Amino acid sequence: MKQSTIFTKTTKTAPREEESQNAILLTRSGFVHKEMAGVYTILPLGLRVFKKIEAIIRQEMNAIGGQELLMPSLHPKENWEKTGRWEGLDNLFRFTSFYTKQDYALGATHEEIVVPLAKNHIASYRDLPQYVYQIQNKFRDEKRAKSGILRGREFFMKDLYSFHKDEQDLDAYYEKAKDSYKKIFEKAGIGGSTYLTFASGGTFAKYSHEFQTLCEAGEDIIYLCEKCRVAVNEEIIKDQSSCPECGSKDLEKKKAVEVGNIFKLKTKYSEPFNLTYKDEAGENHLVQMGCYGIGLNRLMGTIVEVFHDDKGMIWPESVAPFKLHLLSLEGTSEEADKLYEELSQKGIEALYDDRENQSAGEKLADADLIGIPWRVVVSKKTLEQQSAEIKRRGEKETKLVKIADLSTSIHA
Amino acid sequence: MKQSTIFTKTTKTAPREEESQNAILLTRSGFVHKEMAGVYTILPLGLRVFKKIEAIIRQEMNAIGGQELLMPSLHPKENWEKTGRWEGLDNLFRFTSFYTKQDYALGATHEEIVVPLAKNHIASYRDLPQYVYQIQNKFRDEKRAKSGILRGREFFMKDLYSFHKDEQDLDAYYEKAKDSYKKIFEKAGIGGSTYLTFASGGTFAKYSHEFQTLCEAGEDIIYLCEKCRVAVNEEIIKDQSSCPECGSKDLEKKKAVEVGNIFKLKTKYSEPFNLTYKDEAGENHLVQMGCYGIGLNRLMGTIVEVFHDDKGMIWPESVAPFKLHLLSLEGTSEEADKLYEELSQKGIEALYDDRENQSAGEKLADADLIGIPWRVVVSKKTLEQQSAEIKRRGEKETKLVKIADLSTSIHA
Repeated sequence: MKQSTIFTKTTKTAPREEESQNAILLTRSGFVHKEMAGVYTILPLGLRVFKKIEAIIRQEMNAIGGQELLMPSLHPKENWEKTGRWEGLDNLFRFTSFYTKQDYALGATHEEIVVPLAKNHIASYRDLPQYVYQIQNKFRDEKRAKSGILRGREFFMKDLYSFHKDEQDLDAYYEKAKDSYKKIFEKAGIGGSTYLTFASGGTFAKYSHEFQTLCEAGEDIIYLCEKCRVAVNEEIIKDQSSCPECGSKDLEKKKAVEVGNIFKLKTKYSEPFNLTYKDEAGENHLVQMGCYGIGLNRLMGTIVEVFHDDKGMIWPESVAPFKLHLLSLEGTSEEADKLYEELSQKGIEALYDDRENQSAGEKLADADLIGIPWRVVVSKKTLEQQSAEIKRRGEKETKLVKIADLSTSIHA
Repeated sequence: MKQSTIFTKTTKTAPREEESQNAILLTRSGFVHKEMAGVYTILPLGLRVFKKIEAIIRQEMNAIGGQELLMPSLHPKENWEKTGRWEGLDNLFRFTSFYTKQDYALGATHEEIVVPLAKNHIASYRDLPQYVYQIQNKFRDEKRAKSGILRGREFFMKDLYSFHKDEQDLDAYYEKAKDSYKKIFEKAGIGGSTYLTFASGGTFAKYSHEFQTLCEAGEDIIYLCEKCRVAVNEEIIKDQSSCPECGSKDLEKKKAVEVGNIFKLKTKYSEPFNLTYKDEAGENHLVQMGCYGIGLNRLMGTIVEVFHDDKGMIWPESVAPFKLHLLSLEGTSEEADKLYEELSQKGIEALYDDRENQSAGEKLADADLIGIPWRVVVSKKTLEQQSAEIKRRGEKETKLVKIADLSTSIHA
């Protein structure tokens, strides 16, 4: 993509009313735009990251048998009344149609839709297990929207729901989902700083699990057991001041962001909707359920919180908007154009700073801000040696590489 | 995909309260599920069609320079007041946050978001033209939701917005978009029955254009000039009873569904938000705009209306959920399993009816209902000749093909 044609421009000044690094950097670089508190547009550069995150999640969800579908945001009041959450769920947006006088909720989560839906298709033990998921926008009437894109009033979420014949099957799938989540955060680049965290299981299960990523911007406090590489959240630490895996009391208090959570719902939602199946003997049983969520905006924001410096973002290659940022300096556009064409033909995703009215300093600063993994600079000086200067965003060292060898160097 | 594992089941009975063929067939086959009037879940099989439609649209939007972004559904009241549409737009969902008392609109269209957004990035003639689009859910408080998925209260839409320095540039791009839309409907299989239709251009332009697809379920009336392959809508026919291209009065009255529309907004929305640019001489001008919409649910529903018979749907190959439907009859699962594996390895998208408790009749009826382009039946009889029976969904003729030659026959 040519930078001269991009819809957005970078800015040097931090946006007003934003305090968190994720919002400041994503806004300055033209990845997101705040429409109002807690509500953001994902701009073209940001959407490239978003889609890579989506693809990682989708791949892992499909790998554990997930079937993708797409549920609506408009929900009928009746469904939410049935679960007691029309009044009971704090941050549910509720409103009334002007014409039909019908009451709607805006989907904050989708148990109220997916469970009645499953009733149409689950009747027998032969129909179980089932796993369905979606990637879709959610709405929450937060008292305070804060921390940039980490906590929004509208945001995208992957939510998977599993349906089982018994607790044993639910338990086995829950472990699978746990592994799947670990893979997702590994692939997204934050595996090293993300901890499986014990949280309350509510009335039905002893524990649920959060995936918490260490970072200063985190709103949550967790307690790490480095030996087991697990953590407990604040709620749990009150009840038991030790690691649930090894019993160690040597726990380290840290700030973190919850990037995902998995929860054994058991029969909490199958009961109000009477979602049952007939076993081999023709007897009816309530379906056992689990739910598994990942917030996409939050994941994108967390990656920025973990990977940035004072100059800008440092994207992990797996979710970077482009693999390579090609900068043409000092009127080298002819040679750089050619190189860009070659890279495109080789299928290397490149952002090409072909802008004519920007100084070398401005282009280099923008490259640091946008944070693409490989920076490739073409200048008069590098061309004297038929070369370009390459540098990884996170590192200081630069290297002169013959233009003919460039794609090999980048791939290595 | 193995049919035994699919989340949904087909049903023989038409859903209650549905009159239109698209809703009846899409529901019976497990492609969509109605949550309430005008609100549908897109189920796994339906989502496969949806994603193919998305891919076709995306490719053409990118080809005319569109940059994809993703705007929110929650809109601030202030933006809609500025354009006079907070009160002025009939079907705008409006509500108030319980906590912040802030008033929101639910996005029915996105001029109110995209124009202020563009102000951050468009300042000079050098920043123009720009084209941005999204594929995203829209909300409309329809007095009556009807015609199945053709007119919903929540639905997906591709909306592209273009920004230009003058009318001449807008006009040229508008023609490009027209061609792009023709390509989209061609690729989606309904090119032959879709007509560029002259509609009112409002206060700013003589005409806007709709793309209308002939079908009995259509809510619109159009008047065809077969000679020019264009149409005029009812609004226009009142003013001029002739073809705007050739002047012919030999127009044929037909029912049709509006699957897309393109509109020269000119300065209608740049004015209230004062979206201006500086020209070469440093003088300010209002930006000229166009907007270009396609409803995805409606497009999917229209394809069903155009391509079905009394047994079920007949998907054009470009948007079919699978290319091939493999049916294993009469305990031929061993051979059929092997064939399914081979097809998968060759990258041929196949739905495999491996169900053990369904009769041959039920499987054949489901294949007709689901409407995948190629049906491949493996039975004891076909296996006697190391063959499978192949048939195109829309045709009556069947053919015995050696299993070894199958993928060649399908590709041909």
